Amino acid sequence: MADPGLRPLAERLQEICLAAGLTVATAESCTGGRIADALTDVAGSSGYLRGGVVAYADAIKRELLGVPALVIEQHGAVSAQAARAMAAGARARLGVDLAVAVTGIAGPTGATAGKPIGLAYVAVADPAGIEIRRFTWSGDRESNKAASASAALELLVERATVIAAGAARGAQQADPAGTAAATGGVRGEDPAGGAGGGGAD
Amino acid sequence: MADPGLRPLAERLQEICLAAGLTVATAESCTGGRIADALTDVAGSSGYLRGGVVAYADAIKRELLGVPALVIEQHGAVSAQAARAMAAGARARLGVDLAVAVTGIAGPTGATAGKPIGLAYVAVADPAGIEIRRFTWSGDRESNKAASASAALELLVERATVIAAGAARGAQQADPAGTAAATGGVRGEDPAGGAGGGGAD
Repeated sequence: MADPGLRPLAERLQEICLAAGLTVATAESCTGGRIADALTDVAGSSGYLRGGVVAYADAIKRELLGVPALVIEQHGAVSAQAARAMAAGARARLGVDLAVAVTGIAGPTGATAGKPIGLAYVAVADPAGIEIRRFTWSGDRESNKAASASAALELLVERATVIAAGAARGAQQADPAGTAAATGGVRGEDPAGGAGGGGAD
Repeated sequence: MADPGLRPLAERLQEICLAAGLTVATAESCTGGRIADALTDVAGSSGYLRGGVVAYADAIKRELLGVPALVIEQHGAVSAQAARAMAAGARARLGVDLAVAVTGIAGPTGATAGKPIGLAYVAVADPAGIEIRRFTWSGDRESNKAASASAALELLVERATVIAAGAARGAQQADPAGTAAATGGVRGEDPAGGAGGGGAD
């Protein structure tokens, strides 16, 4: 099994997505496929999961996910901007409602100035926008991978819940003016601390 | 950890690839990212692993890996021809020396006429050609995923060993006529039983 700790999140996500007709894709760097593995551990996952990209090399982030070379040059592959571009790219290229992205430094090497081992960004792109979260884990490689995968799945479940609720409310109220689109709440906080301007996509 | 049973194979593969300067990519359907997760559990894997694609939906197999629609129509997504096309597509699109592909029916549902639950094809595309193996596992979903991932990694280690040995021999003998290219041995057996003609790529 991928990681027993991820199973409840994977089951919850599947339940929400199948009920609401939402599709999902993954874009993983430091988690290396663990999120997709956890999602596909649940029977019936092919009903909503279209697939994913493990973008370990920067070239794969550019070529398969469409992350602009300039984003990686200016902000690095482990940055809020890269996470945002990975999520947006996966959502567009894999043609899904929600795409989750993770980029980080699992360790034991790879730290750079201002970017410690354990730093990770997770992002989810969905019909209401892109939400990004920043974490700094303090474990070893395995623990950092597991923590990043779990944090990414938590954000994905949260966003799927909001999108599904919005869709259901929109349908119930038969409101063509778009009540559903307004349920995304406060979005777009910049976990890079305002430095990057969030201009990654 | 992805799967403790895969760890020795992942470590062996990394050792071979780093020593020989070989790069690797994955194309996973029924294993859902588990192979990539296992490879990236080993510190230093970014030295040879460029990334991978989790191609769960047929559209992802076509769009991200270039599997011809006709291959899926004529032979199905779980076929020797699809495995071959996935491996060849991953090798070309991710720009690597060796690409491993897996497609199968993990279960508990998904069986069709002549294609039981547990059926899996693994393929490796490398500079000497494409090798494909067919398996029929008899476990549950989790056991079938694990067995397919292990079989795929075993074939990948075998092929990396051959390619690395050929490259080393070619370098030692300083044979520009290409001794290395002849070391692939007997290839191209058709695990589909000759029915498909192996014309997937």
